[in-house]
Amino acid sequence: MEEFKRLERNLVAHGAILDYYQDTIQIPNGNVAKWDFIKHNGAAAVVPVDDKGRLIMVKQYRNALNRDTLEIPAGGLNGENEPTRDAAIRELKEETGFTARHIELLLTLCTTVAYSNEKIDIYLATGLSAGSQHLDEDEYVQIGAYTVEELTEKIYAGEIQDAKTIAAVLAYKDKYCKD
Amino acid sequence: MEEFKRLERNLVAHGAILDYYQDTIQIPNGNVAKWDFIKHNGAAAVVPVDDKGRLIMVKQYRNALNRDTLEIPAGGLNGENEPTRDAAIRELKEETGFTARHIELLLTLCTTVAYSNEKIDIYLATGLSAGSQHLDEDEYVQIGAYTVEELTEKIYAGEIQDAKTIAAVLAYKDKYCKD
Repeated sequence: MEEFKRLERNLVAHGAILDYYQDTIQIPNGNVAKWDFIKHNGAAAVVPVDDKGRLIMVKQYRNALNRDTLEIPAGGLNGENEPTRDAAIRELKEETGFTARHIELLLTLCTTVAYSNEKIDIYLATGLSAGSQHLDEDEYVQIGAYTVEELTEKIYAGEIQDAKTIAAVLAYKDKYCKD
Repeated sequence: MEEFKRLERNLVAHGAILDYYQDTIQIPNGNVAKWDFIKHNGAAAVVPVDDKGRLIMVKQYRNALNRDTLEIPAGGLNGENEPTRDAAIRELKEETGFTARHIELLLTLCTTVAYSNEKIDIYLATGLSAGSQHLDEDEYVQIGAYTVEELTEKIYAGEIQDAKTIAAVLAYKDKYCKD
């Protein structure tokens, strides 16, 4: 494939969970362009499935959309080198109170490849035991259990729009819920 | 749900395809926090399915990941008020050369709800007719046709990681490819 060459990467702003850079790129025709780059440490997410086959979901306020969203449990890594499996186990416990006897990688996704390097490893968690939540002080989360069919309906009705949640629910359904 | 209150939203940097803001948020316990907000005009994407049931995909270099990615055709809206259906038809033509006799909404997703308002309407396009690409001057795209099974394997093997593409391929498979 033709070669794109990054001539410069300049930090413009250091944010709370991301850094915003302006890149200078030489495109294959020789022209030079300014492109956005968001650097993110990455995250982990979990599809927690209870013994009745229901998925444990969290509802929370999302400032970027100015509304509540229904999502799988997830959270940013504690530094870019934290193993995502550890982060998944931690976020599951913190946000839902559940611990899991079995955890395995379901899917890896990059949220928005046009401008961010954010990568999320999504784990399947089964053999759940209930416990108490340990939310961060700025987290307010409601928990609910839903069947795969309920979640699929919400996806096609536009009631679930979070990309990682849509990808994770449909991957779980495709891989583990064959008719 | 407890109330989060946005006290301020300050533009920090105006980028090429996004604006970076710093928000000041009063969280329900009364504390005040600084949160990142990326404002994006939104985008449209297409799952183009040919008469043999193969999906037309594009491979392109992504600076944010510093590698090539295999994705469904997609592109940003021309201004936040452009109808996403028009953008989907345009991006399909520009990136692949194909026009479609039939186009319908498959899915709406938000790429990364923790910090961005980016929303993508994903359309299903069928009844395809080949034509010539009309790429933007900084676009270099290779086209390929893949079966749903080939794409599903690539998703679980981690060869396709783009979130909109994973969500779209699995939604198409779930909705239209029942065994």
